[in-house]
Amino acid sequence: MTVSLNFWFDFASTYSYPAAMRIEQWARDRNVAVVWRPFLLGPIFADQGWRTSPFNVYPAKGRYMWRDLERICAAEGLPFVHPDPFPQHSLLAARVATALEGAARARFCLAVLAAEFGRGQSIDSEEFASGILREIGAPVETLARAGSLEVKAALKDSVEQARALGIFGAPSFTTEDGELFWGFDRLAAALDWARDRA
Amino acid sequence: MTVSLNFWFDFASTYSYPAAMRIEQWARDRNVAVVWRPFLLGPIFADQGWRTSPFNVYPAKGRYMWRDLERICAAEGLPFVHPDPFPQHSLLAARVATALEGAARARFCLAVLAAEFGRGQSIDSEEFASGILREIGAPVETLARAGSLEVKAALKDSVEQARALGIFGAPSFTTEDGELFWGFDRLAAALDWARDRA
Repeated sequence: MTVSLNFWFDFASTYSYPAAMRIEQWARDRNVAVVWRPFLLGPIFADQGWRTSPFNVYPAKGRYMWRDLERICAAEGLPFVHPDPFPQHSLLAARVATALEGAARARFCLAVLAAEFGRGQSIDSEEFASGILREIGAPVETLARAGSLEVKAALKDSVEQARALGIFGAPSFTTEDGELFWGFDRLAAALDWARDRA
Repeated sequence: MTVSLNFWFDFASTYSYPAAMRIEQWARDRNVAVVWRPFLLGPIFADQGWRTSPFNVYPAKGRYMWRDLERICAAEGLPFVHPDPFPQHSLLAARVATALEGAARARFCLAVLAAEFGRGQSIDSEEFASGILREIGAPVETLARAGSLEVKAALKDSVEQARALGIFGAPSFTTEDGELFWGFDRLAAALDWARDRA
């Protein structure tokens, strides 16, 4: 039986980009399956009293994060463009991703994050979302389904699940035995944990 | 000529503990010299509107940090005891460390952090500080010098230098060419950076 790791991310989250670009390969190396769990940081940041990204709330931390991300992307050989504006509105992409399942969801999420942080594209329009759906070969009708009450409720439920798991930022990784890991810098440790306890 | 890395830490800072326990060995492996820079996070956290550790301000983040630190210490084979109360008052230890130089300062800092996080000792009494000074073979008179105007001014100056470098947390590492790295999880990258640009 394959063990799995839940990958929790927000499409506006900076460090979710390198995590998304590396997680499938690193998981395959360890025989771990990845479950892509798009959610929204907005309601969770609001619990902490923040109305925007903490990287905007705390400028010194923000300046550091951009430089750190630049170094990480250079080390990983990933293209990197600072999204403008930051943070991007991630609600539409999160709903479309929620409307997809399995490999199609993973492909959509990866393509959105690559466009946003690798090419500096804005991710909040229906044109962008339908372009990505075409790019990955998923039905463009997914866009209509993304606006359904069912999908909206499923995304809200993901946010509640994240909160209940103690998640306060992204990317976060949760294991089947209840461990939480936060940050791209914990991705390898999270995968090792999942593998070693399989 | 040996290249050096500045190691900025607060004695109350949790992730400064594994950093202190590993930095000298990892630096030797790369032929990098370590400059131990004790400072105070209090005034820097106050800039961000926090009157205590962010791990107390944001409970979900705090719960995660303790578990994460526990896992890191287990992986590194380091003993770990949750200090009570947290955060510890770090002013006296920071002044004593500032009154010392070079290898004596490094030994003092390491011994304080090992006592605090490895054995759960309180670090804010003169008895504790003089015990550590004896343990490392430094003059106990250092304690009196730690209260001098000169040492107080030097520690304030360290806080200002940290702020000017963009430091917002601890441990932080700064290189001779102006790079800032934050967190125990960036220690190896900071040392690699210093070595590669020597």
